[in-house]
Amino acid sequence: VSEAEFLTFAHGLADIAAATTLALFRTNLAVERKRAGVVDAIAIVTEADREAEAAMRAAIRATYPGHGILGEEHGHENEGADFTWVLDPIDGTKAFVSGFPTWGTLIGLRNRERPILGLMDQPFTGERFVGTREGAYLGERRLAARACSTLTSAVLSATALDMFGEGWERRAFDALWAAAGLRRLGGDCYAYGMLAMGFIDLVVEADLAPWDIQALIPIVEGAGGIVTTWDGGAADAGGLVIAAGDRRAHAQALAILGHR
Amino acid sequence: VSEAEFLTFAHGLADIAAATTLALFRTNLAVERKRAGVVDAIAIVTEADREAEAAMRAAIRATYPGHGILGEEHGHENEGADFTWVLDPIDGTKAFVSGFPTWGTLIGLRNRERPILGLMDQPFTGERFVGTREGAYLGERRLAARACSTLTSAVLSATALDMFGEGWERRAFDALWAAAGLRRLGGDCYAYGMLAMGFIDLVVEADLAPWDIQALIPIVEGAGGIVTTWDGGAADAGGLVIAAGDRRAHAQALAILGHR
Repeated sequence: VSEAEFLTFAHGLADIAAATTLALFRTNLAVERKRAGVVDAIAIVTEADREAEAAMRAAIRATYPGHGILGEEHGHENEGADFTWVLDPIDGTKAFVSGFPTWGTLIGLRNRERPILGLMDQPFTGERFVGTREGAYLGERRLAARACSTLTSAVLSATALDMFGEGWERRAFDALWAAAGLRRLGGDCYAYGMLAMGFIDLVVEADLAPWDIQALIPIVEGAGGIVTTWDGGAADAGGLVIAAGDRRAHAQALAILGHR
Repeated sequence: VSEAEFLTFAHGLADIAAATTLALFRTNLAVERKRAGVVDAIAIVTEADREAEAAMRAAIRATYPGHGILGEEHGHENEGADFTWVLDPIDGTKAFVSGFPTWGTLIGLRNRERPILGLMDQPFTGERFVGTREGAYLGERRLAARACSTLTSAVLSATALDMFGEGWERRAFDALWAAAGLRRLGGDCYAYGMLAMGFIDLVVEADLAPWDIQALIPIVEGAGGIVTTWDGGAADAGGLVIAAGDRRAHAQALAILGHR
């Protein structure tokens, strides 16, 4: 099976997820929330997340029964398979609930060693970012992260401050925040797309799950960037993660984030 | 002159601004930044802001020579006129620079008393929010803010924490943040559109200029919401501003924000 076939299949998975997510985003969420009364909008979105993941899993089982599947809502199937699909139908639940088009559907494929294919779909804006070992693309546009030699010229993005807790991670993040040239919160998975396009230099996050980051790694790497943990290791398992478009800015950021 | 004519004219102004802003957003910004070298992306965007404002001013002068004009980049013309256009071609500079479609072009029209017409255009997503005394609309869709009776069920949005400084305003905001049901930063002017659509309940900001808020007031009010300063007064001048979809959540938030 070629990587091109996997990519075509991943596009199909994104279409499956979009059918569920787009039906809820902006259009039915207000109605559903009203009907649910005290039930929270987050619970409604989580239900859509679960549905979309189940639909994607069914498609994977039908096409690649030997593949593994890992997702937030329905656990890990076929552990130890040669290939594993890593799924998050709605990454950025708070953005989704608030009507902001910065959430995304994350679909990754890893072999035994590492993520080899990633897709981040934002179906409301119609933007689908993909990354393979051949490169990263937004539609037909080939993506390239930009040069950034110093933190003082870096655009730094993070999703929210509460993910850093109140311990050394928050202090380390605050130190990097202070050193960056331009700072913006509210990034969600969309920030990795903007890094791959060359508009953001650093994305720094904490408390990520494997399905929050694995699909994004091939996109950033395909654009010439790098994704690691705060101590420079593989970011596949999530946790404390930093993505950078330029290895020089990455190294300078790690020097700050490493101070416990 | 009827309000409908002013609204048609405001759409034309938004088209004028979009010609400049869309040419730079995502497409040429990377190239321009590279060419400019040490010159910062913010400076490039500010230049586009200035150009777009000058083009809108020229159109206003040609069509309504007796009207006043107030904008960030080129000051106040015809002070004391019966009608004044209040302009901000790129509200949300950091979002623009980072590639996020949450910036907007703000076009307001006020009479001697208050803002009577507002338009917020997000040309990348193709969303144009308008508000008049007849109501608020996104395209053909009539907008209605949603009910929210308690802060614990409220979705709270703000653009960034640094706008609150380090004094009592930050402490008051933090208290409201702790009381809200769901919190999200990175809102920019787009958050007011989402409030008018019924996906956000409270937008709280500080340090706003008149051109940051006047266009948004008719949109929120047209959707049944309310915009005031933190002490409940008229928000036209900017400063400490709160927008709410429901007067009950607004009153509860003011009770917290009023604690100096």
